[in-house]
Order: sequence, then C-alpha cells, then structure tokens
Amino acid sequence: MTAPLRLGIAGLGTVGTGVVKIVRQKAALLAARTGRHIEVTAVSARTRDKDRGVNLSSYAWEDDPVALARREDVDIFVELMGGSDGPAKAATEAAIAAGKDVVTANKAMLAVHGQALAELAEEAGRVLRFEAAVAGGIPVVKALTEGLAGNEISRVLGVMNGSCNYILTRMENAGLSYEEVFAEADGLGYLEADPQLDVGGIDAAHKLALLSSIAFGTQVAFDNVQLEGIERVAIEDIRQAADMGYRIKLLGVTQMTQRGLVQRMSPCLVPADSPLGQLEGGTNMVVLEGDAVGQVVLRGAGAGEGPTASAVLSDIADIARGTRIATFGLPARMLKSAPAARSSVPAPYYLRISLQDKPGALAKVATALGDAGVSIDRMRQYSHEEPTAPVLIVTHTTTRDALDHALNQLPDTGVLSGEPVALRIEHV
Amino acid sequence: MTAPLRLGIAGLGTVGTGVVKIVRQKAALLAARTGRHIEVTAVSARTRDKDRGVNLSSYAWEDDPVALARREDVDIFVELMGGSDGPAKAATEAAIAAGKDVVTANKAMLAVHGQALAELAEEAGRVLRFEAAVAGGIPVVKALTEGLAGNEISRVLGVMNGSCNYILTRMENAGLSYEEVFAEADGLGYLEADPQLDVGGIDAAHKLALLSSIAFGTQVAFDNVQLEGIERVAIEDIRQAADMGYRIKLLGVTQMTQRGLVQRMSPCLVPADSPLGQLEGGTNMVVLEGDAVGQVVLRGAGAGEGPTASAVLSDIADIARGTRIATFGLPARMLKSAPAARSSVPAPYYLRISLQDKPGALAKVATALGDAGVSIDRMRQYSHEEPTAPVLIVTHTTTRDALDHALNQLPDTGVLSGEPVALRIEHV
Repeated sequence: MTAPLRLGIAGLGTVGTGVVKIVRQKAALLAARTGRHIEVTAVSARTRDKDRGVNLSSYAWEDDPVALARREDVDIFVELMGGSDGPAKAATEAAIAAGKDVVTANKAMLAVHGQALAELAEEAGRVLRFEAAVAGGIPVVKALTEGLAGNEISRVLGVMNGSCNYILTRMENAGLSYEEVFAEADGLGYLEADPQLDVGGIDAAHKLALLSSIAFGTQVAFDNVQLEGIERVAIEDIRQAADMGYRIKLLGVTQMTQRGLVQRMSPCLVPADSPLGQLEGGTNMVVLEGDAVGQVVLRGAGAGEGPTASAVLSDIADIARGTRIATFGLPARMLKSAPAARSSVPAPYYLRISLQDKPGALAKVATALGDAGVSIDRMRQYSHEEPTAPVLIVTHTTTRDALDHALNQLPDTGVLSGEPVALRIEHV
Repeated sequence: MTAPLRLGIAGLGTVGTGVVKIVRQKAALLAARTGRHIEVTAVSARTRDKDRGVNLSSYAWEDDPVALARREDVDIFVELMGGSDGPAKAATEAAIAAGKDVVTANKAMLAVHGQALAELAEEAGRVLRFEAAVAGGIPVVKALTEGLAGNEISRVLGVMNGSCNYILTRMENAGLSYEEVFAEADGLGYLEADPQLDVGGIDAAHKLALLSSIAFGTQVAFDNVQLEGIERVAIEDIRQAADMGYRIKLLGVTQMTQRGLVQRMSPCLVPADSPLGQLEGGTNMVVLEGDAVGQVVLRGAGAGEGPTASAVLSDIADIARGTRIATFGLPARMLKSAPAARSSVPAPYYLRISLQDKPGALAKVATALGDAGVSIDRMRQYSHEEPTAPVLIVTHTTTRDALDHALNQLPDTGVLSGEPVALRIEHV
C-alpha cells in the first residue's frame, strides 16, 4: 500500500464534520476500496472553540484556510467553506499553486470561477472535483462525465434545490401561503443564510450551469441562465395546477439547440403522476438524456450532512484510486464558449391574470392573447368577492417569444390588476 | 496525446455493432473526453458474411475469439458474445493472460466465474470491467463502486430484467394471460434464446449476484440467490394486486443481515403508485441504500443496442482515461465468502389458494395459517363456476419461515386444488 492520502479540510459545518466522521469511522473500508489509507491531517474553520460532535484534537488547526491549503502534510484540499469569492477562492487557488488536488462542494465558486480554476488546476497537473456541488448525494457528475461518456447529451433537467421543493410541497400539503412556509423553513434552518440563494433559484442555477458545462463541453455560463425563483408562486397556483393534474416544481433545464445553449431555472408545471411530479420534500431528481442511452433518471437526497459528505468522499476515493478526470469532463482549454439562446422549444403555459372587475375585461385579455398568436386551451374564471377577478388560462403550445409579446401587450388592455404569472408546462 | 487505445471486439450482435458505431461516429468526442484516440482494430463473430448495417472491412477479422484476444494490436478485449463458459470464458482468460484489459457485458460468465476471472486479472495487473452486464444503460456499477465509495451499503434492490417487466406490464395493460404474452414476446424477439434465462429470473439473478459482490465486498454467490421466476404469475394475481393498489414486479433484493447475505429474486407486490410500481415495459430501476447517502434511485433502459453500448463505452472511456478499478470494487483477494441466509426481514404476503368446493374448506385453510402463526389481514373469495374456488389472502407481516411452515401444512387440509401462489409484498 502506498503512502497515506492526507486531507486538509476547510469548513467544519455539517458537511465538513460529516466528512471527518466518515474518514475516521470507515478508515479500513476506504483503504480496502481505494488501496490507500485516507486520513485527515489538518482542519480550518471560522471558530475553533465549538462543539461539533467530533473530536478534532488530533488534527492540526489553521485559522487561515490559505495556510491550510499550503501545508506540506496535505495532499487534497477539501474546500467546504462556500461563497463564490473570498477565502474559498483564495484557498483553492493557493492549494492548486502548492500542487494539491482540490475537492469542493462549492457550486457558487465554480459557477462563477469554474473555468479559471479548472484551467489553473490543469496547468498545474492537479484535479479539481465537485460531485458534492450538484444534487447532494446523487452521483450525477460522475454519471454524466464518466457513465455517459459515449453519449452526445441532448438535454439535462431536474429538480436541484431541496429547499424550494420542500416549500412547494409543504404549501400544497398544508395549504399554506408562500410567506407562511418561507418563514417556517427559515426558522427550521432549511434555507441558506441568504435565502434568496434558495428561493430565488440562484443555488439551483449554479448547479445547472455546472451540469451544462459537463453535458455540452461548454464553459460555465451561469450568467446566461434564465432565472426565475419561486417567490411569486401562490397557493392558488398550486391548487389550480393540482386541479388540472399538475404540480409546480422549480425545474432546471439545459439543452443545446441550433440557436445556442438554453439554460433556464424556473417554476414549471409537471404532470402530478410523473416521477418529477411525485418528488416530495428535499429530494432531488436529475434526468440525463443521451443519444445512445436514452433517458437516465437519478433520484436522491439533495442536501444534508450524510448525502453531501458521501459525494465529497466519492471524489476523494477517486483521487485515492488514481482516477484523474478533468473538472468539466473535457480539458478546460477545449471547453467552448456557447452562445446563449432563449428556449426555442415551444410549450404550453399556465397563466394567472388578475383582472379588474370591469365589463369586457376577459374579452380584452383573450383578444390580446389571440393577437399575439397565443391560443387558449382552457380558461377558468371563478366567482369572487374581491374587486379583482383571478383568471386561469392554459395556452396551447406556443413559443416563449409569442407569449412574451402577449404579456407585453396585456397592460395596454387597461384591465389588469397586478402582474400576470406565467409558468411553463413541461411534459418530461 | 498518447498512442491510440485499440479495441478487439468479440461478438457482433446488436451490442457489438452498437459499440463499433459509437467508436466510429464519436471518435473526436471520445478522444477529447478521454485524452486518447479510441479505435477498433479487430473483430470476431460466429458468422462473417452478414449485413450488420456497419462497414467492418477496415478491421482485421478473426474467426476465433481466442485468437482475437491475443492479437498484438489489441489493448482492450471487448467480450460481447455471452454464455457463462465456452468461447467467452476462454477468450477472456486468453486476453488477461496476454496482458489485455477486458470489458464485458456477460453477466452469466461473471456470475459463475467472476471471482476466478477477477483474481486472474488482478494477478496480471489488468482490469476487468462490466458496467453493461447490469441494468443496461444505467451506470449502476459505477454509482455503487465509485459514487457511493464512502458508504456502508445496507441494501440494493430493483427491477433488473426488462423482458419480465414487459411481460408483466403487458399482461396487466392488455388483460392477457402469461402464456399469451410469453408467446408474443418470444415472437417479437424480446426474450433470450433460452427464454428461461428471462422468465425464470436467472438473468436478473446474475445481475443481482454481481451487485451483491460490489455492495458488500463478498465473492459472487449466484448459487445462493433464492430464485423464483414469473411463470406462475397469473393474470388473476395481477388483477387482484391492482385491485388492492399493488403491481407485481420481478424484484431483486440483496441485503446483508446478521445471519448472512440474503439474495432473492422473485415476483413481489409493490405499491402501484411507488416509483418501482410505475415502471413500465423494458425499463429497469435500481435502488441503492447507503448509511451516509440514504437512498439513491437510478432508472433507465435495461437493454437494447444504444443503452448497452453506452455502458460498454463507459468502461472503455474509463480505461482510456487511466482509471483502474478492481472488478468488484475491492481487490479480488479481499472479497469474503459470505454465509447465505434466508430473509430475516418479515413482510406481508399475498396468497392465492385454489380450494376444492367443499364445505369448511376456507375454515381449514384459515386454521392452518393461524396454527403456523400467520395471521390474515384481508381475505377474499369470489363467486365461481368452476369446481375450484380461488381465495385471495393478504397476511399480516410474517416471517418467511412461518409462511413456509403454513404452506407446508396446507396440503394436509385435503381441500387444496393445485399449489398455492405466495408473493411477498415489498414496501420500498
């Protein structure tokens, strides 16, 4: 057996301590599986004196993660601090410069600096891996990069943020408003310190941008993700969707089209009885579509100590076994810059429009939609007591361009009360 | 870029020609992804003059796969002939002896000779990989061996034979008998040359035995799989199950218990609205349960040219990238011989018992079950015109031992007409 593989772990939140526990408790199993003894030699975190439920006294302590990254007794720098810039980026760069391999769970950092960091690692002959950054415990980076290596990937889609899925399913199951469930989830610690990362879809969009890069051999282009969070999804939308056989999910889709790369993260209606529609709580699901394999679907826990630590260990075990894979599948210098495109794939849409209670209001909306080339499949207006009347519309399949044109015309009707809600209906 | 990686492909059925097509059509993509040019140099099959829809004239031809395996211009021997012994085994052994890596889709060979072949490969410093042998295009071997490397695996289960799942779903959807659908599937070429491999559950049991080995670090023990095929599943069972909210699936389960390794492949009732219950046609689904990751579910096409070739390419791409992983995850010499155990996990069971139309028949059956400690949750007897009366029983949770005891007692009642059908009810 060769020399031990020595880990320096920066960030000792739930995931970091989870990794420490697994490395310690499963030393023999990991050594048998990888052919190398794996051990933690040094750790770093913001606060030293804190009970983390695991004894860290046998590891060297560094206040500064950059110092940790440069330690001579560290072979793999395990970055679990988070944040797109600041200490995480500085320490990752320092680790690569010092000749360390890097394993990270930091989707924000890779979504913004992934290309530069992958190039740095490549030039230094080191690997930079991030299984834990996407969909928690689901080995989706591995499946896509290695398992489907013989495929041209046509599309990747899925539910990649457990917190949003928790909020949406909780709204439906308990009949609560978005605001009520948001407050509840925040109180339970289910949301990021900046909740906008979750409910704004940013965290999920980070993941989608990373998957795009692997799937299509393109440079990470997080800024090109068409992004819409779940903040405007009302309990009424969830009820109406359910009534029509759908459920609302924050769905990410990345697809290479003739016009360019389409990446979108937005609340969509999916059939309630489909695998995506049945997804409850914090579970994630990713669908990979390749020309040879067809559709492969992966489901599992999208977050949490065990699942995320499991993914970190997958990367560490790979390195211990001698597996060396480029960060995004292709060598970083070969990744192309793909032109961003809006979706060219038409779809039906769900619209909720609040109308002022005026005679002819409904006709004006229907006319505006028709003039824009958007035809109506189903329309419902309910009896109401407020001075505004909610109207629910399901369109026939239409392009997003036509829909946007229609939505732009609607205010001119002079009968709207508030901004319309438009959600794509996705039949996967 | 280093020297090309040269493939010798033995077996040119749908999978073999599928691999040839991908290697040819995606030469540039594969070279970019793996850092090596991959090419076919030689092929072998039983019949040379046959239109396979792909031009093979630029490859050397060998009538004898053993000669192919030994060729100097072959780096990876790709074994796609099938059969547990004979040419497949001889050629695999010859390839390893000649210093080649081996990629195979041959579950029968590995289920019987996997331990010996893995040891041979290890002694020779070569790899022997088999992603395509289990669940077609689903990268389940990779997920389990590498993706969940940080986990103690507690259980692996799933639907692993597309032909059986096709037959069972077709029976239900068309209301046809087993015999009718069997004849139909056989006519369509959906079944193995020896259909018993499919409907007897043998093919699926081969796969389960391979997954057991990876999951638990044990030597492949195909002979210890408790095996029951789908031949005795009647349309009546399918209807009754549906009526109670279940569907019948040929389900494989492998689980390490305190008493030993439980491996079983048998028709089971699963909730109709569960992911396993919703599986239609030839799709496979494998559920992996690990202590850190929780439950990871993988779904995809279980067979066919594209999916299986995709899995073969995954192994080839790994080797091209320099990834070297032991056949069953652990070094072959470290794999333990696990004692076989019958399931110690109690479950409810579905029973269909044909009774002679005699007074008191039902009471005698109920008494026999009760005497054996098996209590009845639900019982149904339908009006009937035949001289035998079918009785459907769902038991409370019971051990298989108690159930077998009861089933052994039943003939003594003197009221049976034919052998009872007993199917486990599995809530995954």
